Amino acid sequence: MCVFEVVRKDVGGRFGKFVVNGKVVRTPALLPVINPNRLIVSPQELEKDFGAEVLITNAYIIWRNKDLRERAEAEGIHKFLDFGGVVFTDSGAYQAMRGKELEVSNREIVLFQEKINPDVGIFLDAPTGDVGYVEAERTVFDTIERAKECKELTGDSKIFWACPVQGGVYPDLVSYCAEEVGGLGFDVYCVGSLVTRLEAYEFGVVCEQLLSARFSLPFNRPLHGFGIGLPSFFSLSVAIGCDFFDSAAYALYAQKGRYMSVHGTYYLAELDEFPCSCPLCVDTTPEEVRRFDKDERERFLARHNLYVSFEELRLVRQAIREGWLWELVQERARSHPRLLEAFNVFKLYPELERFDPVTKKSAFFYSGQESFLRTEVSSFRHRFYENYRPEKGRSLVVLPYSESKPFSKFYNVWNTKDIHFAVMTPFVCVPLELENVYPVSQNVFVRNDVLIYKEMEEQFGVFLDRFGSYYYDIKVLYDVSSVRGFVKSLRLENKGKKAGGSAWDYLLDLKGLLNFQFGYPAGDIFGENVFVRLSKRTGKIKEIYDEENLLGVLRMDGLFIPSVYCAELLKNVLDYPKRRVVVGDDEVISFIRAGRSVFVKFVENCDPKIRPKEEVLIVDKSDRLVGVGTSFLSAEELLSFDRGVGVKTRSTIREEKKSY
Amino acid sequence: MCVFEVVRKDVGGRFGKFVVNGKVVRTPALLPVINPNRLIVSPQELEKDFGAEVLITNAYIIWRNKDLRERAEAEGIHKFLDFGGVVFTDSGAYQAMRGKELEVSNREIVLFQEKINPDVGIFLDAPTGDVGYVEAERTVFDTIERAKECKELTGDSKIFWACPVQGGVYPDLVSYCAEEVGGLGFDVYCVGSLVTRLEAYEFGVVCEQLLSARFSLPFNRPLHGFGIGLPSFFSLSVAIGCDFFDSAAYALYAQKGRYMSVHGTYYLAELDEFPCSCPLCVDTTPEEVRRFDKDERERFLARHNLYVSFEELRLVRQAIREGWLWELVQERARSHPRLLEAFNVFKLYPELERFDPVTKKSAFFYSGQESFLRTEVSSFRHRFYENYRPEKGRSLVVLPYSESKPFSKFYNVWNTKDIHFAVMTPFVCVPLELENVYPVSQNVFVRNDVLIYKEMEEQFGVFLDRFGSYYYDIKVLYDVSSVRGFVKSLRLENKGKKAGGSAWDYLLDLKGLLNFQFGYPAGDIFGENVFVRLSKRTGKIKEIYDEENLLGVLRMDGLFIPSVYCAELLKNVLDYPKRRVVVGDDEVISFIRAGRSVFVKFVENCDPKIRPKEEVLIVDKSDRLVGVGTSFLSAEELLSFDRGVGVKTRSTIREEKKSY
Repeated sequence: MCVFEVVRKDVGGRFGKFVVNGKVVRTPALLPVINPNRLIVSPQELEKDFGAEVLITNAYIIWRNKDLRERAEAEGIHKFLDFGGVVFTDSGAYQAMRGKELEVSNREIVLFQEKINPDVGIFLDAPTGDVGYVEAERTVFDTIERAKECKELTGDSKIFWACPVQGGVYPDLVSYCAEEVGGLGFDVYCVGSLVTRLEAYEFGVVCEQLLSARFSLPFNRPLHGFGIGLPSFFSLSVAIGCDFFDSAAYALYAQKGRYMSVHGTYYLAELDEFPCSCPLCVDTTPEEVRRFDKDERERFLARHNLYVSFEELRLVRQAIREGWLWELVQERARSHPRLLEAFNVFKLYPELERFDPVTKKSAFFYSGQESFLRTEVSSFRHRFYENYRPEKGRSLVVLPYSESKPFSKFYNVWNTKDIHFAVMTPFVCVPLELENVYPVSQNVFVRNDVLIYKEMEEQFGVFLDRFGSYYYDIKVLYDVSSVRGFVKSLRLENKGKKAGGSAWDYLLDLKGLLNFQFGYPAGDIFGENVFVRLSKRTGKIKEIYDEENLLGVLRMDGLFIPSVYCAELLKNVLDYPKRRVVVGDDEVISFIRAGRSVFVKFVENCDPKIRPKEEVLIVDKSDRLVGVGTSFLSAEELLSFDRGVGVKTRSTIREEKKSY
Repeated sequence: MCVFEVVRKDVGGRFGKFVVNGKVVRTPALLPVINPNRLIVSPQELEKDFGAEVLITNAYIIWRNKDLRERAEAEGIHKFLDFGGVVFTDSGAYQAMRGKELEVSNREIVLFQEKINPDVGIFLDAPTGDVGYVEAERTVFDTIERAKECKELTGDSKIFWACPVQGGVYPDLVSYCAEEVGGLGFDVYCVGSLVTRLEAYEFGVVCEQLLSARFSLPFNRPLHGFGIGLPSFFSLSVAIGCDFFDSAAYALYAQKGRYMSVHGTYYLAELDEFPCSCPLCVDTTPEEVRRFDKDERERFLARHNLYVSFEELRLVRQAIREGWLWELVQERARSHPRLLEAFNVFKLYPELERFDPVTKKSAFFYSGQESFLRTEVSSFRHRFYENYRPEKGRSLVVLPYSESKPFSKFYNVWNTKDIHFAVMTPFVCVPLELENVYPVSQNVFVRNDVLIYKEMEEQFGVFLDRFGSYYYDIKVLYDVSSVRGFVKSLRLENKGKKAGGSAWDYLLDLKGLLNFQFGYPAGDIFGENVFVRLSKRTGKIKEIYDEENLLGVLRMDGLFIPSVYCAELLKNVLDYPKRRVVVGDDEVISFIRAGRSVFVKFVENCDPKIRPKEEVLIVDKSDRLVGVGTSFLSAEELLSFDRGVGVKTRSTIREEKKSY
């Protein structure tokens, strides 16, 4: 069994697990390269000291040496390496790219790998390296041929196979190759020919290669970046969607006396103190290590480099789980101008935002103008301008931005039947009823930054272009005291509201929220009589009812969780497949009705606009409502993944199980 | 003996040593706070496991407790703590700021500290805390009074005394206090009343407090920032000029279950993996630590927090030594918007550039528009526009920027008698003869960044405003091929030059370089006959002669090192004290003549424009030339420091010792 499952998402990054032959690898994962001829750090040490769950070694090097070959064939690769974790084997393509004449064919090395029995084998592709377009095209055709050959040879294989994608620096070739091999059903996909560009610090080019591959390959398979070994490039690779990287950099750098850090690489010779707290570095000084003998020094550096690499990997995983991966990428982009170039490519890539969750555990931290290009911002703007629709015929009163939130509390106002408030923010000009939605409220900006005000004004312009005609007049208030004066003059103070209870006042607000969240005309489900229960602690809306039924509750991040009663109403006003996740199998549906999660492999269809962490309607093939739940994945992922939870069920028609 | 000596500089940051009672503390240094009532991490552990060379404890807490007091008085503080390193004692002002009624007077606590014999005592100042202006002013007056009282009480003290500077959030009060106490001759100065602002994450305000204090205090004394314990704020504090910080944060955070990192602080409860490689974190998991008993957990966190803090400190010191402190500050400013606010204050502070060395070990790494505000840039621009003067009457040909350097090699051109080339760069529009001067050649920019081109154009505008009238015509070439065509059409190829030898061609270039470096009319020292010897390897100028004598050689960074023969000529054209460092003592001069360095305490006067790493003329009181050398410090520092090397002597009149 080979399983890849995603548990948490952030930007394009995925925190998950890869399970093969019963062994679990947390992803993103780093695969240290083991040279079977020269073990600087042994596989056992990798497992014990660094927590390595997976490594990669080279089947070609083993095959070429009669002794090694016979031993590997006899023992199998795990015993050969004395490693209990997951083993990948590569097949000599790297050596070929480095200009070596290979003595082995794809067929031979594939069959050899079958014999030595790694968990994941890699066939002998045709690396593009640094060649012209015509030559590059040939390598792509060859790689596709060999992929097919591998598939034919390994029809009843006990091992799993990874397929490299070639095309080098030509994005169209990379995409073409990815699309062709993507259909062949490999278990893992890899991006090849990155090494020479990585060595030249051409991270911008590497970034384009990874993006082209990632968005042309099936999303349900892990993506492996060959040769990505520089810790400062991990976060960006992961944010694009890399799940694995392998690298011999830790050992190769060590050979050259190079000491890795996320701020750059030093020569041991230039260090006076170790800027690191790994168990090796806190115990000695650079001067002492310079006096070590050559092998001891190399081992010291290799082990230090591994500590740094695994530390960065854990940090990246932490960032995904907490939702600040973009911020880590921004920070790392400051360690070298070439990484900043890569970041400049990455930040403008339009596809990423659709994969980013609509809400995050961490607040949005502003760190300069480029923050406005974050997936969190573009995703929010897209949803807002696609879905939102204000009620016609009110006056619009635009309030200045405030650091203090919620805005309604700071200004002590709320929307009325006649007046619709909106607040200038750098995200969009936000209607007051959306003030709690992520990231409107969950953020920290820099004060007195003129760029932020410029962005707010620009966004206000966009708002007016889109919605200006909905309002019969528009008034902009530029400072706190004029807001206070305005509120006082109209006796708009929010006091009455705090008492809660039923009120038509909430009607338009809830309409606005539902339109934003589910798309117009979702808000039309509300009749005239809507009752709300407010939270005693926060004064915010907690539950919404009509005359008889619970319509829904509000999430911490201001989004609406419909009851199944409400979901039925929503389904009626929203055309198929809007907001739906369609489950085909009737047996499965009965499990879901009992409250079980929707496993992604049973998702037959869904709204192509679904993003992770959105509330969705679970329906059967005939579009009958089964229940409601929170999607863990984006639409593309719901449709492509075959393992893990797709939708966490909140409540279902059969039994009103509530998990809020 | 109490000695503070600066060895390396970067921005406002100083790497050096503080020597007291024969014990050496590398600075910048972190002083962990030891609570004598509650040792979570013992002084011995601090020394052994974390390499702490200095710590701080609270004399007031000891004084208040009869047992502790008697023991400390009997044993002395070092034995009391069982700590061999440097000990600072504080005196209860922190407790007073926290609103506690103190039972001790300044006089009592000063005399008590004399008895327990720390290396450095701190008298009981009047902390400003968060009060209004009038009240703040009173604390400043009180602090100054108590400083004087301390001085009176400790006239023949065996211990050294630190003096806090108060004034809170009012920069004018901080400056006033600093100027007043700065004249009293304390051994260390401290900035107080930072803690509440630090706790509120008001790093912008703290930054202003530190800047106000630093630039109003004597530069020859270490500056101590009270309560700076957040590792992500270390680099900025150091870049302003802090040499010490003390903090109990490691322990206080641990008490609250908080885990420090340079990316922010986590609660232990929210961590799934430790994003750290310290010996504690690589050996366990957050889940395991959560199962520790309370004390064990607190100790784990306190020790981890110390590892992180000392790691950051070592990194900061490494950054100073290599000259990329500004880049580290930029990176850390990305970890929280409030740190970015502080960075926004810091980056605009005009005084810093005069303290920044004119050359760095590391290349200048561009990381966004704010890089143009770096001290390296403003320092270069200042020197350029103050000093440089092109030869009149030539044509100016402006070439586009090139990533490939040197420009002259990339374009294969050189200045002629009639044509003066200059290259568009984001620093200034650079005359070709300055192409190797730091940072013109030693940098990496991001390609295709429109902001960089905007900056170049702006700088070209400034160049034209300043020097346009010197040229009889001006031609701008916008791309590589037009440069190549132009060069070809005029047969300007640089071939002849490479052969080297004598040539009037170099004359104007050398004039330009000397004017830039030493200020107009330094270039006038050259007669018509100048001969150069080129480096065989690089083709660059190596040595410069007139008919008989060596005039000088060129540094790696393109600056000119005058021979003493040349220095004499320079002295004749440059008015006193331009480019001079004046040494008063005749006995000392005879040592310098013998090749010894100029110790800073013997510097009587100097050119107020000297920056670290510049070539200077060493003269005696009567302005007779003694030799030439490289300044290690800026003018202000040369005049104020009393320890360490001020100028490294290169060659002297008596014996032509060469160290190049």
